Amino acid sequence: MNDSLLLVIDYLGTFAFAISGAVAAQQKRMDIFGIVVAAFTTACAGGVIRDVCIATLPPAGLSQLPYLIVTLSAVVFTLLTLKLIDKLLYPVLFFDAIGLSFFAVFGAHKTFTFTGNIEMSILMGMTSAVGGGVLRDVLLNRVPIILHKEIYATAALLAASIQVFGEWAHWPIALTSSLAAGSCLILRLLSLRLGWRLPSFHSRKNNP
Amino acid sequence: MNDSLLLVIDYLGTFAFAISGAVAAQQKRMDIFGIVVAAFTTACAGGVIRDVCIATLPPAGLSQLPYLIVTLSAVVFTLLTLKLIDKLLYPVLFFDAIGLSFFAVFGAHKTFTFTGNIEMSILMGMTSAVGGGVLRDVLLNRVPIILHKEIYATAALLAASIQVFGEWAHWPIALTSSLAAGSCLILRLLSLRLGWRLPSFHSRKNNP
Amino acid sequence: MNDSLLLVIDYLGTFAFAISGAVAAQQKRMDIFGIVVAAFTTACAGGVIRDVCIATLPPAGLSQLPYLIVTLSAVVFTLLTLKLIDKLLYPVLFFDAIGLSFFAVFGAHKTFTFTGNIEMSILMGMTSAVGGGVLRDVLLNRVPIILHKEIYATAALLAASIQVFGEWAHWPIALTSSLAAGSCLILRLLSLRLGWRLPSFHSRKNNP
Repeated sequence: MNDSLLLVIDYLGTFAFAISGAVAAQQKRMDIFGIVVAAFTTACAGGVIRDVCIATLPPAGLSQLPYLIVTLSAVVFTLLTLKLIDKLLYPVLFFDAIGLSFFAVFGAHKTFTFTGNIEMSILMGMTSAVGGGVLRDVLLNRVPIILHKEIYATAALLAASIQVFGEWAHWPIALTSSLAAGSCLILRLLSLRLGWRLPSFHSRKNNP
Repeated sequence: MNDSLLLVIDYLGTFAFAISGAVAAQQKRMDIFGIVVAAFTTACAGGVIRDVCIATLPPAGLSQLPYLIVTLSAVVFTLLTLKLIDKLLYPVLFFDAIGLSFFAVFGAHKTFTFTGNIEMSILMGMTSAVGGGVLRDVLLNRVPIILHKEIYATAALLAASIQVFGEWAHWPIALTSSLAAGSCLILRLLSLRLGWRLPSFHSRKNNP
Repeated sequence: MNDSLLLVIDYLGTFAFAISGAVAAQQKRMDIFGIVVAAFTTACAGGVIRDVCIATLPPAGLSQLPYLIVTLSAVVFTLLTLKLIDKLLYPVLFFDAIGLSFFAVFGAHKTFTFTGNIEMSILMGMTSAVGGGVLRDVLLNRVPIILHKEIYATAALLAASIQVFGEWAHWPIALTSSLAAGSCLILRLLSLRLGWRLPSFHSRKNNP
């Protein structure tokens, strides 16, 4: 996995996350500006939170133009394909899973490089991957999907953990990243296909 | 536009934003503490997010006393004038528009000074201006108004863009700031008067 | 009050806050991952916001393992005692009040040490103590409890103010911290017992 491949996947992930934000905002009947804000937030907020916490400022998502351009392209794409968006559901989820995998790997890698802290790198890898979606849902005034739907953040947690363990153990970086991203992708896609969910716990009182 | 004028407008903007937060919290029947928190959040959170992202810490809104004093004054003013608050709607919106204009200009100026990054300065100018209102709405558990009402953040985006372009092109700072703030103010007031809204996009499926 | 006592109280506070987050998430029927996220957010987010604002990075709550271990223990404890949780209400509130007191004192102390700014130290002491609970409620899509229930953040404000005043006046640190934490604890417990609330303000229009 070389640098230009990483870059392509990074932009594909941003594109997919931005589409998911734009679709959600459009369904809430927001105006064009609200749609752009929701798309940009979904695509970039996770990385911004990570960069603030590890003090690599200014955050890449806010200061590097490609992320904004990719987001705007995703918004245009979404609005042009509104009638098709139901048919596009599976591709969107697929790219979203790719984005999830890559952001988790890249976030864990960047944090481990800057802090060397294992716990923090795993947490920040996961945060990079899911933070944008959480903020999107907070802005749209609903309980974040990742907290009560199929396996999602857990897959990001797996990717970040493998990445950090591999870097800590000095595995080859290409092998580590492929293994981490691949495991996340497979777990996420399987859980989508098979409807896997984590257990929840209901007390008697809540389940009459 | 000299420094003491900037300062007066800054405090007026803070005052207006704090009133808008206090009124919203009072309508949700919060207690006096909740009202102060909502007012302070509305007035200062945008600038705090900006300062965190550009690493000018500690954030001015949290470490400089005048912002807190202006906020508390605005809360007292709001509670004393509750019966009049409907009649005061237009003045509040007017000061709010002034605050929006100034915060966008000042946020863009401060970010451009510290980072020299054009994209980031525009984004942070807008964030300074609208971030407080977004957080206010998130705390009050509603979809942020700026994402689905008349032209608001778009006006801040305009002001920040003009400000950054002017500073990049080495226009005189007083001219740049006046032009930027004035354009934002006029656009915002016109859109209030005339009910201008940005287009939104409804798919067939959502509009049976 | 020596260092190991401070540490024990810190972990007890984290444990109590994590229980409160886990209980709230379980009541919203989140899965096990959502419960852990809500518990960790409630226990650590206030301190993370404080550390970001005073630039002591990476934030302790994200980079020091004991906080995560205490949180996970609290989640296991909560899930094992679901049937008892109603009977445990009072102990939970008691530990929560201890957590509130300690986090306010510690947050104010840490901020005053790093910035020397009185206003900021009081605000950050309060934020350390209540920030996690606010974020918990935002994630669970409800108006933050602290903004409209009995005296809560006000008690944290009192503790932070006493702590900062004591440190500014060079009182003995053990005396200052005990006085600050004790005042907060007593005020909070009394307001729980007696149902004290701060006044709210309803305009005629809202109270037909």
